[in-house]
Amino acid sequence: MVRKFDARQPDFETGFAAFLAEDRGTGHDVASIVRKILDDVEASGGQAVADYTAKFDELQVNPTTLQSDNVDLHALAADCPADLRKAIDFAHDRIAAYHTAQRPADHRFTDTTGVELGWRWTALESVGVYVPGGRASYPSSVLMNTVPAKIAGVSRIVMVAPAPGGELAPAVAYAALKAGVDEFYPIGGAQAVAALAFGAGRLKPVDKIVGPGNAFVAEAKRQVFGRVGIDTIAGPSEILIIADHTANPDWVAADLLSQAEHDPSSQSILITVDKSVGKAVEISVENQLMELPTGERARLSWEAHGAIIDAPDLETAAAIANQIAPEHLELAIADPDALLPLIQHAGAVFLGHLTPEALGDYVTGSNHVLPTSRAARFGSGLGLYDFLKRMSIQRVSPEGFAALAPAALRLAEAERLPAHARSVSIRTNRSGADG
Amino acid sequence: MVRKFDARQPDFETGFAAFLAEDRGTGHDVASIVRKILDDVEASGGQAVADYTAKFDELQVNPTTLQSDNVDLHALAADCPADLRKAIDFAHDRIAAYHTAQRPADHRFTDTTGVELGWRWTALESVGVYVPGGRASYPSSVLMNTVPAKIAGVSRIVMVAPAPGGELAPAVAYAALKAGVDEFYPIGGAQAVAALAFGAGRLKPVDKIVGPGNAFVAEAKRQVFGRVGIDTIAGPSEILIIADHTANPDWVAADLLSQAEHDPSSQSILITVDKSVGKAVEISVENQLMELPTGERARLSWEAHGAIIDAPDLETAAAIANQIAPEHLELAIADPDALLPLIQHAGAVFLGHLTPEALGDYVTGSNHVLPTSRAARFGSGLGLYDFLKRMSIQRVSPEGFAALAPAALRLAEAERLPAHARSVSIRTNRSGADG
Repeated sequence: MVRKFDARQPDFETGFAAFLAEDRGTGHDVASIVRKILDDVEASGGQAVADYTAKFDELQVNPTTLQSDNVDLHALAADCPADLRKAIDFAHDRIAAYHTAQRPADHRFTDTTGVELGWRWTALESVGVYVPGGRASYPSSVLMNTVPAKIAGVSRIVMVAPAPGGELAPAVAYAALKAGVDEFYPIGGAQAVAALAFGAGRLKPVDKIVGPGNAFVAEAKRQVFGRVGIDTIAGPSEILIIADHTANPDWVAADLLSQAEHDPSSQSILITVDKSVGKAVEISVENQLMELPTGERARLSWEAHGAIIDAPDLETAAAIANQIAPEHLELAIADPDALLPLIQHAGAVFLGHLTPEALGDYVTGSNHVLPTSRAARFGSGLGLYDFLKRMSIQRVSPEGFAALAPAALRLAEAERLPAHARSVSIRTNRSGADG
Repeated sequence: MVRKFDARQPDFETGFAAFLAEDRGTGHDVASIVRKILDDVEASGGQAVADYTAKFDELQVNPTTLQSDNVDLHALAADCPADLRKAIDFAHDRIAAYHTAQRPADHRFTDTTGVELGWRWTALESVGVYVPGGRASYPSSVLMNTVPAKIAGVSRIVMVAPAPGGELAPAVAYAALKAGVDEFYPIGGAQAVAALAFGAGRLKPVDKIVGPGNAFVAEAKRQVFGRVGIDTIAGPSEILIIADHTANPDWVAADLLSQAEHDPSSQSILITVDKSVGKAVEISVENQLMELPTGERARLSWEAHGAIIDAPDLETAAAIANQIAPEHLELAIADPDALLPLIQHAGAVFLGHLTPEALGDYVTGSNHVLPTSRAARFGSGLGLYDFLKRMSIQRVSPEGFAALAPAALRLAEAERLPAHARSVSIRTNRSGADG
């Protein structure tokens, strides 16, 4: 049985807040294990990476090259079927088009005091892309993490993916080559994150590490953050669907299950302003679960973390959505554009009945790497911005200097930083003369 | 004596790389201490915050309100001298103007397949601003961290600042009120970060925590990252100056020392393409150090971490600058705009002889919270973007659905996600009928 809430009930807020606060993570404390792996790789480089890879992935990699005779990206890619290549090419081109549109403009302006200000965006030089291996080995993830880096102008894109026993999906290999990965290493786990951050063997350190992984990978990214950039700490993911009487219950049920099948810790929530739709969706979920090959996993998620919420109106539904701050939000309602302005916190919004999350996962072109576990309160999905940084620019004219100097001197004095004051005052006498 | 390098020498690269890799941090392992403080605050809330504040700051705060009878923001602000208020107002207005210009535009477009795509920027709801107390209590930091949040539209700005023994700078209090801080708590350290992230007493959790702090604060931010957003992990800061024969050695020396006076771990580096300028700067630094009230601190920094590098030309100087990826880069040269396109990695660039870093620290309007310790390789200074997030938007038409469905189905099949495939295929038969 899935949990049900009624937003009209006086105890809704308390009960629902407790539901939202439930831990969907693994709960394992992996910090000290990860610390040791990072320290080992920093101290022993490629040898430590090779040792951990032999231990965890049963794969021999050369401590210097970090390559394995059993994993050849080009050979693997050649095994990718033609129709799947075509689908990957199609997704690639759409992702490239969407992210090309994201490029921010440089800006430069002169204000009334004669001070020139602005900023300039430049690309990161090198990026490491972590791609999970095994069951969760997704060519779409390769594209979503790599294509924006390429579009941004990153000149060195390094991909790592564990290949347990030498196994790696041919579609992952094809997607990597299609997206233009410059270097590939068949390594994973915290040891791969360490190798990317510190360098190991011939793998030179990168400037930023992106891509999802298990709890060890997430913790390793957290621990190397600062020394290199990271994208986000990914947690369990979720979908929220707001449905009205125009929604097709079978479609809504299918979309809820498309999230639930990912992992038992996934979360699928329906808010409906029409009770009969809620009931019909609940029945349809049960029916579809029985047919679904991934039904066992999806049922665990649906029964542990799923919910159906009755809301009196769409405004209330939007307020609840903002409280959830879902990774994915489908507006399966008659006029989604009318509700959109009320949505403040969501990773991605899917408008109308023909826009299931699954299309966004693969081929609309927008990025499927999105803030999970309520992180849409403060974070954005992956985008071109993750591979660019903004350099601020300023140039002070003699007139501008005269206008700015007094306040700067007063503040430096208040902050007891006399060398700051001196670097202004030393120029004061000559500020009219130089430019 | 300051260290000197010559980029023309064959061993320059090795020696300089070793210099850059030197640890300027504290080296203390604070992770476990911070972990305990976070756990205590999460378990015991306001009481734990009050206990730690009594212990570390010798200040009694009420466990429920987290307020102290000895710290009244309005009373303190009233003690701020009129001329200092005027300087704070001046800086405030310039910072507000600069960050207003940063607002990114929403975007919506329909592609050739009839798929509508785009994104929308929305503000964070609540932000915590950490302001260091004691000696490093800076009104300018209050403005730099708070004003962009206000401009972005953050509705709840919470400031924390330790007030050891009840002491807090009146200018900090005035700047907080001027910038529009909504709540203030006289707490600091890891316990304040924990209170902001988890909530404590009447302090409700915030969505993101920004602002610099000591090693405990930095580690606490690292550990709560994911649960809330954070800005960056701040490390020791630095200035790099590229100077040619047009530079005034006394001005350059003053600017190097304005960075060195912050902290013994600060770093000031000069690259000059004119050896005589390098020599003159070295002498001027010695002379100014003798007069400077903060000379002792500045000398520690200059002698331990400073450097003067001779470069054969400006192109080489730019390449070295990119390797350093400095927080602050002054181009004290005849034609800074000509060199700017070669600069790839820097937090902020100051063009020409009349733009010392100190003006940017206070009053040009651009943000002085910048990526330190080589983080400009992957990060940007604080800006409006830190207080906004980007929601992706997509809407698929019947024609678009027909165009996208086959590739999505093929990819879902390859990734063994049958519920993803079903959420597409279930709509296929009716995709011509619904919109």
